[in-house]
Amino acid sequence: MTTASLFEQCLNRLTRDRHRVWSLIVTLFGDMAYQDGDQVSTQVLAKITDPMGVKPEALRVALHRLRKDGWIDSTRQGRSSVYRLTGFGRKLTLEAAPRIYGQTSPDTGNWCLFTASTACEDSGRDLEDLSVEKEMVQLGPNLLLGRCPQDGAPSSLLVSRVDPSSVPEWVKSRACPDELCESYRALEQSLLEVSSLLPDDLNPLECAVLRCLIVHSWRRVLLRHPEVPDALYPSSCPAVACRELAMTLLERLPRPSLDKL
Amino acid sequence: MTTASLFEQCLNRLTRDRHRVWSLIVTLFGDMAYQDGDQVSTQVLAKITDPMGVKPEALRVALHRLRKDGWIDSTRQGRSSVYRLTGFGRKLTLEAAPRIYGQTSPDTGNWCLFTASTACEDSGRDLEDLSVEKEMVQLGPNLLLGRCPQDGAPSSLLVSRVDPSSVPEWVKSRACPDELCESYRALEQSLLEVSSLLPDDLNPLECAVLRCLIVHSWRRVLLRHPEVPDALYPSSCPAVACRELAMTLLERLPRPSLDKL
Repeated sequence: MTTASLFEQCLNRLTRDRHRVWSLIVTLFGDMAYQDGDQVSTQVLAKITDPMGVKPEALRVALHRLRKDGWIDSTRQGRSSVYRLTGFGRKLTLEAAPRIYGQTSPDTGNWCLFTASTACEDSGRDLEDLSVEKEMVQLGPNLLLGRCPQDGAPSSLLVSRVDPSSVPEWVKSRACPDELCESYRALEQSLLEVSSLLPDDLNPLECAVLRCLIVHSWRRVLLRHPEVPDALYPSSCPAVACRELAMTLLERLPRPSLDKL
Repeated sequence: MTTASLFEQCLNRLTRDRHRVWSLIVTLFGDMAYQDGDQVSTQVLAKITDPMGVKPEALRVALHRLRKDGWIDSTRQGRSSVYRLTGFGRKLTLEAAPRIYGQTSPDTGNWCLFTASTACEDSGRDLEDLSVEKEMVQLGPNLLLGRCPQDGAPSSLLVSRVDPSSVPEWVKSRACPDELCESYRALEQSLLEVSSLLPDDLNPLECAVLRCLIVHSWRRVLLRHPEVPDALYPSSCPAVACRELAMTLLERLPRPSLDKL
């Protein structure tokens, strides 16, 4: 098969799910234009998103929305515009990056169970505050699982240390519910197919398109649940395999320099 | 005041609460006749319990009940009988002794929270089994606090490690509820009074009577709740002070040899 046809097949596989355009753009900036000073022209954005099936009108709407939300801003250059992440957009992008691009999951050593009294309203409120502040796994109405507090927890909560490598399956199912595992299984299938099809002689634009779609597919599932150590995924959930597949694919698809597209 | 009158006052203080006669006899054997071969005659039992206000008929009924329950057995000796603990009675007596006579509370290092899934019946059943098997503090319908398992817990339970020295007050109130703290406060008052009254020149029978009443009053409160480290008593609960008072009093009242009474 030709490179062009293999690229097409990878592309089809990765666009089988409909992606929201504004969300794709967030991924694109996060992957290829996240540094201070990076900017992308309308033309380059169109070049990358067009093969994904994004119509020019949909791109315009998405860019408008992201500007309105304060995620990106733009400057006119002649008949075109250039876009860049705002301070706010870059901050959130950089915060998410270690999780999306990390080769390993977080440390297992530092996990705690937070228990509120069912009889004490203050205690319940403190637990609620904690669940808003931090990424936590809700194990029950009065139980949260999450990283141990560095600077102490509210004194109304019972804090106990959990070893993620020896928790029952029902805890894992709370950390990563069935429907999420289903998404991971679908993602695994898709990444496995792309792995076996991916040609080694793609041009920079093709690399950019597939990179963007792979990062997007991966982060869409990953960021749907709190960050947990590998041991907290149910045994039937291929989250770790997905991370490995995604990272290996990204290594095979070097990040292109946007001014060469 | 004379020794006799001081003894009377101590006796009055320690018999202000009505004690069940069979239970007093259990304490008496546990304190003074718990070794293999130890036996006590009806006369000696009467000598010790008479000052406590126990009538001969009540003593007979209590001894009958304890024999029927398999706690003690008896042999006729002439016109009298001698009683001793059965194997069963001695076993339970020896099991309780470390807790009743221990100078310190259990180690704080090894405490765990056991959490059952509210959605999984098996898990709830495993927690129930655990609460029957072991002395546990019930913190909620799906939560138990107790010693960490040496040989693993059922795999349906989430086990997390608790530091008893930093638990919220509501956990302490579960470990030792208000009405129990009230009993500890009453016991503390009574032991403080006896401490200040107790003469140093009691005869062996008087020692036996007061020892028995002190051990009895102490164990009655102590054995009403699961064994917990000192840190788990609410701050307003004088359980630790009671232990110290009781142990100091017992040192001042040497265990008499029963054949000298």
